[in-house]
Amino acid sequence: MPDLRTQLERLGLPLPEPPAPLANYAPAAAISSGRIVLISGQLPMENGSLIAQGSVPADVDIDTAVRCARQCVLNALAVLERELGDLALVRRVVRLEGFVACGSGFADHPAVIDGASALLVELLGEHGRHARTAVGAPSLPRNAPVEIAFTFLVD
Amino acid sequence: MPDLRTQLERLGLPLPEPPAPLANYAPAAAISSGRIVLISGQLPMENGSLIAQGSVPADVDIDTAVRCARQCVLNALAVLERELGDLALVRRVVRLEGFVACGSGFADHPAVIDGASALLVELLGEHGRHARTAVGAPSLPRNAPVEIAFTFLVD
Amino acid sequence: MPDLRTQLERLGLPLPEPPAPLANYAPAAAISSGRIVLISGQLPMENGSLIAQGSVPADVDIDTAVRCARQCVLNALAVLERELGDLALVRRVVRLEGFVACGSGFADHPAVIDGASALLVELLGEHGRHARTAVGAPSLPRNAPVEIAFTFLVD
Repeated sequence: MPDLRTQLERLGLPLPEPPAPLANYAPAAAISSGRIVLISGQLPMENGSLIAQGSVPADVDIDTAVRCARQCVLNALAVLERELGDLALVRRVVRLEGFVACGSGFADHPAVIDGASALLVELLGEHGRHARTAVGAPSLPRNAPVEIAFTFLVD
Repeated sequence: MPDLRTQLERLGLPLPEPPAPLANYAPAAAISSGRIVLISGQLPMENGSLIAQGSVPADVDIDTAVRCARQCVLNALAVLERELGDLALVRRVVRLEGFVACGSGFADHPAVIDGASALLVELLGEHGRHARTAVGAPSLPRNAPVEIAFTFLVD
Repeated sequence: MPDLRTQLERLGLPLPEPPAPLANYAPAAAISSGRIVLISGQLPMENGSLIAQGSVPADVDIDTAVRCARQCVLNALAVLERELGDLALVRRVVRLEGFVACGSGFADHPAVIDGASALLVELLGEHGRHARTAVGAPSLPRNAPVEIAFTFLVD
């Protein structure tokens, strides 16, 4: 195993300052042991239908998209409760994978997905902080504006 | 660690019914222990070339896209067999990450990726059920209509 | 648990040759045990601003996009060093999830994300080889041309 620090120096590649997260999440998440639960991509379903449909911001404004991201969290927690039987078994949020339906030139994916991240931190404090991806998609299932998948660490 | 149920009540956020999956997959997948194999994103290659190229449904119809998703499974199993030496070591499918090349307004990503999910369930029964994401992309490597990455639990 | 080989034969589905990776990565990555670190999606930030903005190749040429992918690696390693305290704890790169901002018909995602893959292999040899996804997105946070998330195995 080459020494990574030595290799970086040999290649003349000084490491930068670690970039700060763009919003309410962690730059990294470590998992040492324990049971991991992966939640399938959740859509902003509420009472059986989508809160909104279409592209952000053309069809769905940012505020509504943020509310959609929050709803994805509630749906994920409902799935998790059914899976575990008891939400008290949740130890930590590990990662969110967030997708925003949008077009070329859109830049505010972090603000949208932060609807989910902020709610998890509000609910669980430090245990709610997580690693994250936030990216665009031309469209999502059922023409939803947001889809988020979740990784939890549980007892 | 805050109690999640109490926190949800405090914030006035009752959990909904867990939304049903849109197709042939599971809302969640748990991994307690064991060896995990991550398969790189597979394209619908057959005999060295893509089954189809372009966007769904503009260039590639849904039926062909479903067949592409099935082919991604066969390619993933071929990779897995080479990795493991023996497919009898496969214990369970954990997760699929499905990408469909498409435009704005497309809504049928689940039907496309279900080509893969249904085949895995057909092959492995309950052990083939998995968590899943299905999202759109403006384009995929080599202009493929479908790309799917896989997570397996093995002995 | 059905025997997968038998099931494939029963369904008349011979497995193909495992497709070769399109670039400098591995078709699969196994994790047996150990500590996993997930790095949040990294953008090509350099000295506090993006190296480039927009869509590949319309606004950002392939060479620049490759350099963006390399920068994502440096940022990820900086995050990892802060997380671990010491990069000597890194045992292996497990997976990259690469997103390229692009339009319909783009086909060269592998060449772009290979900027990251090749650098990791250059730095860590066999320990730098990893499973990978490379997909398109209509846009990415801050209008970045590339976003990459990383999974590392560490001591």
